[in-house]
Amino acid sequence: MMRTRPLKVALLGCGVVGSEVARIMTTHADDLAARIGAPVELAGIAVRRPDKVREGIPAELVTTDATALVKRGDIDVVVEVIGGIEPARTLITTAFEHGASVVSANKALLAQDGAALHAAAEAHGKDLYYEAAVAGAIPLIRPLRESLAGDKVNRVLGIVNGTTNFILDKMDSTGAGYQEALDEATALGYAEADPTADVEGFDAAAKAAILAGIAFHTRVRLDDVYREGMTEVTAADFVSAKQMGHTIKLLAICERTEDGTSVTARVHPAMIPLTHPLASVRGAYNAVFVESDAAGQLMFYGPGAGGAPTASAVLGDLVAVCRNRLSGTTGPGESAYAALPVSPMGEVVTRYHISLDVADKPGVLAQVATVFAEHGVSIDTVRQQGKDGEASLVVVTHRASDAALGGTVEALRKLDTVRGVAGIMRVEGE
Amino acid sequence: MMRTRPLKVALLGCGVVGSEVARIMTTHADDLAARIGAPVELAGIAVRRPDKVREGIPAELVTTDATALVKRGDIDVVVEVIGGIEPARTLITTAFEHGASVVSANKALLAQDGAALHAAAEAHGKDLYYEAAVAGAIPLIRPLRESLAGDKVNRVLGIVNGTTNFILDKMDSTGAGYQEALDEATALGYAEADPTADVEGFDAAAKAAILAGIAFHTRVRLDDVYREGMTEVTAADFVSAKQMGHTIKLLAICERTEDGTSVTARVHPAMIPLTHPLASVRGAYNAVFVESDAAGQLMFYGPGAGGAPTASAVLGDLVAVCRNRLSGTTGPGESAYAALPVSPMGEVVTRYHISLDVADKPGVLAQVATVFAEHGVSIDTVRQQGKDGEASLVVVTHRASDAALGGTVEALRKLDTVRGVAGIMRVEGE
Repeated sequence: MMRTRPLKVALLGCGVVGSEVARIMTTHADDLAARIGAPVELAGIAVRRPDKVREGIPAELVTTDATALVKRGDIDVVVEVIGGIEPARTLITTAFEHGASVVSANKALLAQDGAALHAAAEAHGKDLYYEAAVAGAIPLIRPLRESLAGDKVNRVLGIVNGTTNFILDKMDSTGAGYQEALDEATALGYAEADPTADVEGFDAAAKAAILAGIAFHTRVRLDDVYREGMTEVTAADFVSAKQMGHTIKLLAICERTEDGTSVTARVHPAMIPLTHPLASVRGAYNAVFVESDAAGQLMFYGPGAGGAPTASAVLGDLVAVCRNRLSGTTGPGESAYAALPVSPMGEVVTRYHISLDVADKPGVLAQVATVFAEHGVSIDTVRQQGKDGEASLVVVTHRASDAALGGTVEALRKLDTVRGVAGIMRVEGE
Repeated sequence: MMRTRPLKVALLGCGVVGSEVARIMTTHADDLAARIGAPVELAGIAVRRPDKVREGIPAELVTTDATALVKRGDIDVVVEVIGGIEPARTLITTAFEHGASVVSANKALLAQDGAALHAAAEAHGKDLYYEAAVAGAIPLIRPLRESLAGDKVNRVLGIVNGTTNFILDKMDSTGAGYQEALDEATALGYAEADPTADVEGFDAAAKAAILAGIAFHTRVRLDDVYREGMTEVTAADFVSAKQMGHTIKLLAICERTEDGTSVTARVHPAMIPLTHPLASVRGAYNAVFVESDAAGQLMFYGPGAGGAPTASAVLGDLVAVCRNRLSGTTGPGESAYAALPVSPMGEVVTRYHISLDVADKPGVLAQVATVFAEHGVSIDTVRQQGKDGEASLVVVTHRASDAALGGTVEALRKLDTVRGVAGIMRVEGE
């Protein structure tokens, strides 16, 4: 049954992920061949720095000319693990033009130009697979676009960035502040020297765009995703969260709006109940919680980054794409037929935890409650704590739109008796 | 792009799952058509009791002649949700012979005759998909056989039976005994009138056989799976488990042996650390923990049974099989190339928690420790509690083979100072 002519793979990038892909392709060549039905051969590896020592990587395969590699014409599958927009985008498009299918781990590119890349793949009758682009090794793209293809997904709630989960978990378990926890993450290699992409939520927002697109069969671009980082989360926020039996996670949230006519996608820190399965996701692990009509509540958990886990996802895609080529077909392409509008953040409906510094005198609570009522935001609980003429008021609301909450907060700031709004955090997962 | 001639589906069985499949196929026909690329039509529904009132099921589709339905010749996909060995097996085989692909939720049949059914599918160039056979709605078969196709799975550790997890969770959280918890499960509809298949581990063993087969690319039959039910688990066992920071779950465990030359599959109650992700799986939920070389530790969580969740898995498969038919191909078939031997239970290596009732006099611990040493079973911890001339000794071992542990226990029973072996439980997940 086994074909003897090997399928040829071009690897673009040989960093943490690429070198693991190359290593596994070499050491597990027999298993891959048996699972695909034909041997796979690493035909070339494009790198930026050809002189770097790469253990186990055959020097004769290394080239700095990625364009020539994807243009060779005999390449079956291009594996793109360079990251970033260019040259990855041009190389992928060129690969399709020259007859190759593509496996990519590039979340930024998929989130920004997914539609165009899918169109290019389809125009050339090729596959574009990208399981590794979201949540590393965790099978998520395939379950969403294949296993749940007969179901209606209503919500995706995910911890999709390991760096920020490590930091928040550290703050939660030790009472540390943000900076202290970030420093530890950096020292341990969980955070990069410039942690902006992680802590400001850019990385999670790209993943949210990809997940929302697949979950709702609708094109969702990075620009459609509301994004708020987690650098403002304080130790005091964790104390507040604990008081109501919650913890704080940076979440990527993709939802259908209540009437089902549009969708939303957002990334921000949020309080979630300790009883929620996502609450116990520790350290740099990722997990994605999916709610659908028929399946109910599902969760997928695992390492969201790292060379070997990401390589596992890349290789799973490589096996699938190779099998498709052998049988002369392609897997499921982009599914955007639903084409639902993406609503702005103001229309997102959720609950809020608001801490106010107020004057400790009679009537303050009545004033504050009036402002909430005037803006149509219903209060669930209020907790009042006072000392020395100063007091704090913690309000947890029922569900209200982001716009209504914004209006409420603006009006609260204008009250004489409100000294300041110490914190606003969304409450999710209930 | 959309083909107008519909794909025809024959539904075998219209119980809890089948009626949900029919309902979703009707109410979500447009979504299914868009995702498949062609409309799907319910062409016939085979039932045992044609007179039963089935809301929303068109009476003209209902037939009692399942054989005639699968032999029609114009059926693209047969969905088998009857369960049990016969007539399901013959109907599936007949379906392949008459040109249909098959989606099945039948764990018992797949565990017993999976190899023959896969061979029949392959001989006729048809698909056999069965995501719903293991852990209901949780995508598990597809991630294992596709997402992890480029990785090496070393262990699968799963809570794959919701009834027993409900009972054990109840015992854990309330201190109830087995019978009391079972009665509650029965009253709430989580346990059947005859709970044998669940509580004796038969259901979980069938799933273990299927999971082991896929994970290790090796045929594993139901007979290969060691099986021990959970009817002997007591409230006292939970007290012991808590004392060491553990809880008790009924686990399906599929592992490579340490030298990698064989595999094992087993179902039995086990203590697992409270910090293990499986420990917090509550109620009737299922979860499966997978360890692989590159991906590391993954977990898949969700509802393991029920009409709608199981229908979600069936419909995901239906979409995939329909897509395959449209593109004239088939998905991945059985992968059993590794053909590793399945080792007997005696060769399984794990840790053990053993409670002994002993005489409260000097030298007992020395005697007991000598027996362990003589059988090559190394002791991790011993806890001794004495009162009124009676004492109990709780021994937790290091890793040892089941055969060595069995020999140890046999020898312990012969000691004059050992009044009885109160309990033996395996310790997993560390």
